[in-house]
Amino acid sequence: MASMHPGHGRRTKVFCFFSSEKKDFLALMIDDLIYDANGLIPAITQQHDTGEVLMLAWMNRESIAETLATGSVCYWSRSRQKLWRKGETSGQTQRLVELRADCDADALLLLVDQQGVACHTGHRSCFYTAFRDGRAVETAPAETDPAALYGS
Amino acid sequence: MASMHPGHGRRTKVFCFFSSEKKDFLALMIDDLIYDANGLIPAITQQHDTGEVLMLAWMNRESIAETLATGSVCYWSRSRQKLWRKGETSGQTQRLVELRADCDADALLLLVDQQGVACHTGHRSCFYTAFRDGRAVETAPAETDPAALYGS
Repeated sequence: MASMHPGHGRRTKVFCFFSSEKKDFLALMIDDLIYDANGLIPAITQQHDTGEVLMLAWMNRESIAETLATGSVCYWSRSRQKLWRKGETSGQTQRLVELRADCDADALLLLVDQQGVACHTGHRSCFYTAFRDGRAVETAPAETDPAALYGS
Repeated sequence: MASMHPGHGRRTKVFCFFSSEKKDFLALMIDDLIYDANGLIPAITQQHDTGEVLMLAWMNRESIAETLATGSVCYWSRSRQKLWRKGETSGQTQRLVELRADCDADALLLLVDQQGVACHTGHRSCFYTAFRDGRAVETAPAETDPAALYGS
């Protein structure tokens, strides 16, 4: 996937660096996915080399297109109702390594290279709470102070 | 997590083998999760030792309680609108190793030991379609004939 978007910035108009053939394929691929009533599809984000599941978020057609065009992961924020360019504020960006879809085309798997931490709490992964023997356990400590990420 | 449900079958009444303290904790934990308007929460299923993401499915309160009580993963089937005891027909069950929740408590990560294949197509993982260089690529072949799994 990285070879499809060599070096151009995240604000680039979608698809503009692709050949016509690739543009057509990607537009069709995006159209072929199954979205919910809000036009969203869930996306699992996994660190490409370690296999760590970092987060689950949501994408719409526009955020998928932008992610493919720029190579930097962009979600749809349900709480803010706008594109969520991951790391835009915190610097903790995700470089897309590969996009996969599941057998029903209603879920995505993003293999990424995570810069720093994925979670707004400062944890590497959002899934740091495990339920073990009748209690909640933190599987790993926060790696970064959230105040340092968001300046608050 | 495995120590919480030693050896009893999947039809066991939920929580009946837990101590009162564990029952209370698990009931609270299930209540504390954030469900969508249909009472569902997305669950990522990952092979506990290899890190392979196997599938994404949905759970409701009842399926989470059953999964914790039996140690065998049970989802909620949105298409059939009923509990989906994974592997009940195909034999391809998932033994729960650990349940995790994300920072917002609106997504689950199930670490499991997958018996056979997770996907109804016979692939080990449902995420076997990658988009590479403008085309869809099968990342791994099917390991099992679906007809052998479902007898059709």
